[in-house]
Amino acid sequence: MKPLSVGVAGLGTVGAGVVKLLRDNAELIAARAGRPIAVTAVSSRDRRRDRGVPVDGLRWYEDATALAADAGVDLVVETIGGSGGTARALVEAALAAGKPVVTANKALLALHGRALAALAEQRGVALAFEAAVAGGIPAIKAVREGLAANQIRRVAGILNGTCNYILTEMRTRGLQFAEVLHEAQKLGYAEADPSFDIDGVDAAHKLAILAALAFNRPVDFSELHVEGIRAVSAVDIAMADALGFRIKLLGIATRTEAGVSARVHPCMVPVASPIARVDGVFNAVVAEGDAVGRVMLEGRGAGAGPTASAVVADIIDIARGRVTPVWGAGAASLSAAPALPMERHRGAYYLRLMVVDRPGVIADVTAVLRDAAISMESMLQRGRAPGEAVPVVVTTHECEEAAMQRAITRLAALDSVLEPPALIRIETL
Amino acid sequence: MKPLSVGVAGLGTVGAGVVKLLRDNAELIAARAGRPIAVTAVSSRDRRRDRGVPVDGLRWYEDATALAADAGVDLVVETIGGSGGTARALVEAALAAGKPVVTANKALLALHGRALAALAEQRGVALAFEAAVAGGIPAIKAVREGLAANQIRRVAGILNGTCNYILTEMRTRGLQFAEVLHEAQKLGYAEADPSFDIDGVDAAHKLAILAALAFNRPVDFSELHVEGIRAVSAVDIAMADALGFRIKLLGIATRTEAGVSARVHPCMVPVASPIARVDGVFNAVVAEGDAVGRVMLEGRGAGAGPTASAVVADIIDIARGRVTPVWGAGAASLSAAPALPMERHRGAYYLRLMVVDRPGVIADVTAVLRDAAISMESMLQRGRAPGEAVPVVVTTHECEEAAMQRAITRLAALDSVLEPPALIRIETL
Repeated sequence: MKPLSVGVAGLGTVGAGVVKLLRDNAELIAARAGRPIAVTAVSSRDRRRDRGVPVDGLRWYEDATALAADAGVDLVVETIGGSGGTARALVEAALAAGKPVVTANKALLALHGRALAALAEQRGVALAFEAAVAGGIPAIKAVREGLAANQIRRVAGILNGTCNYILTEMRTRGLQFAEVLHEAQKLGYAEADPSFDIDGVDAAHKLAILAALAFNRPVDFSELHVEGIRAVSAVDIAMADALGFRIKLLGIATRTEAGVSARVHPCMVPVASPIARVDGVFNAVVAEGDAVGRVMLEGRGAGAGPTASAVVADIIDIARGRVTPVWGAGAASLSAAPALPMERHRGAYYLRLMVVDRPGVIADVTAVLRDAAISMESMLQRGRAPGEAVPVVVTTHECEEAAMQRAITRLAALDSVLEPPALIRIETL
Repeated sequence: MKPLSVGVAGLGTVGAGVVKLLRDNAELIAARAGRPIAVTAVSSRDRRRDRGVPVDGLRWYEDATALAADAGVDLVVETIGGSGGTARALVEAALAAGKPVVTANKALLALHGRALAALAEQRGVALAFEAAVAGGIPAIKAVREGLAANQIRRVAGILNGTCNYILTEMRTRGLQFAEVLHEAQKLGYAEADPSFDIDGVDAAHKLAILAALAFNRPVDFSELHVEGIRAVSAVDIAMADALGFRIKLLGIATRTEAGVSARVHPCMVPVASPIARVDGVFNAVVAEGDAVGRVMLEGRGAGAGPTASAVVADIIDIARGRVTPVWGAGAASLSAAPALPMERHRGAYYLRLMVVDRPGVIADVTAVLRDAAISMESMLQRGRAPGEAVPVVVTTHECEEAAMQRAITRLAALDSVLEPPALIRIETL
């Protein structure tokens, strides 16, 4: 059978990994795809750079969008990255030309997925993006196809390996955030400008995609509540341990009668919960369906191999004719459930206050919580240092985010409270 | 669009669960399938029994194979169970009639999958069986499609919830096997005749299927080495704890240059490995690919909801036209790699001997191991009881199964060894 001819745009780590994997496993991929798959064209700006894969004999384009116009290209792989610019122009051009697209680009999907899905549906071509969420873990396939019979109530996960690595190192080695970040940058686990990862933006892109699939409802990125891990301190990690929790940066999307909520922030999860034990650079995705119960998937969320594994799985699906609407259902069947704002969130909380160690402080703190109708579950003050700053930790029963935020404003205003209170939400998953 | 008309054969827990789920989530299933899916015919022997779902208005057949001949049925669901008889006759009749089949029947696939796959391919119709392995966990989809770009080196898992429940209860409550089994039978977690589960047969059926998918090679059931958990004692569970292991019944299939091996037996796995922490009735599947690394999926492996979730996911795939060859590649591309016999297995071992507590016994034991060229890693004798029976535990470095079996025969023949030695293989996963 005639090979499926693939054009790869972007020859960074992921793009080069895709070219290499398609060659290394060519025979088994052909068997599973039902036909050979061959890269025939590539696009990248600098032709001379060594990418670890030979590109001789391939048609070369400096302008990525030209790949879409190449009559010899059946399917376009986009591994340029970035939510706009060239990546977006290429994907639009390829879909408009009726060519299926496989992309690893979470930012593009999270920010422009609605329009791209409409274009793909209108042209009747596949737009696949397994690599955009949780690297090599087939999380998108599991949620969108494997659990398709379920009303999914919640989808959540550890979606950023850099954050999970930093939090794991902080815990196991008792270090502060800044120290571990610096080390991670030296090891190449964190970027020189780490804000995209550590401020939760990358995890939020992935959560927006997962939520859209789980609930058949495109999620606008502006609907998400996003916090990163900069404010998590070594004290919080130690306190979590003492309270039987682990701190994880989670993305959590929930569907109720009232609507859809999606949020990314540090969480305290019980040590015994399966996701608490997913450490280091590993990612995990948990989905809860009405029929299936809870399913968890874990594996490597980044790197050339895992990401290429997901991109090539999408190519094989398309070669076999296995196609799914972008958000799991056609445009006419998508849900228009409202987005719930973060103020409406209900949950339990961990609060850490740095207070002056003197009589009466705890009474002031508990009075503020009482006035906000927030019920305390536990209070912990470890160590004594009369007249100096000590941490006081409070955990609460379930209450509303809005009430908690009002209480925090009042707590921060107390004379005896020396720093802005630290808040971490408690989640059972 | 015209509904996809489904005939369900067998109205036990699973069949009734499928009918119920297709009704309960009809709207979202139609959105995801691209068309409504309606059960129009059922087959079961006893029409009067209450199954918790109304079956009024459905065409009723006492003879299941008649479903295949019903011109109004587009797709046949087989939930009768059993490796032969009615279930097999129905599946063959449906495929022969050019109708896609969805089944939850692991025994049927494990024992007759080769012939059924050939029939499905010849007729060009789908034969789907996600529910046959690990219940609601989309393990088959993950291995066959999600990791399709990978040379899979190993696939393994906790594939029987009854065994995992029994082993978990033995550990957490310090009970003997027989006590927990009895309790599990009362709770409905184990059958009145439990041998199918506790002797490893059910797990072996599932492993045969997973191995065939992972390696694109049908695995004859006779090629598997199968041991159950009857011989695991409370002493072994306690010793495992002391050595930093958990005992799990695992199915493990490996592909090397030399061939394919597939085995089901109790294993010692390090406490820190993710699969060690999958407890109770939960199942887990681990796959290791050359590009993706290790991926693990966990969830409920049985029950009406999870199993129906998997069956209906298959129906949705077929409605969407997403079809995959039974063993992941067409007959012409399947592998004919040889099966490796268990004697060729290499690994580390845990051995427990019940010996008379007297001087010289350890010297006899270690001499046998030395003569078999088996290298010891540790030796543990807890407690003293001069002249009485005490357990002595030995762990070894990697050696060949054949050498270990010869050593065990010699150890069993020693005067000071009072019971047949207990052997549990140590696995890192």
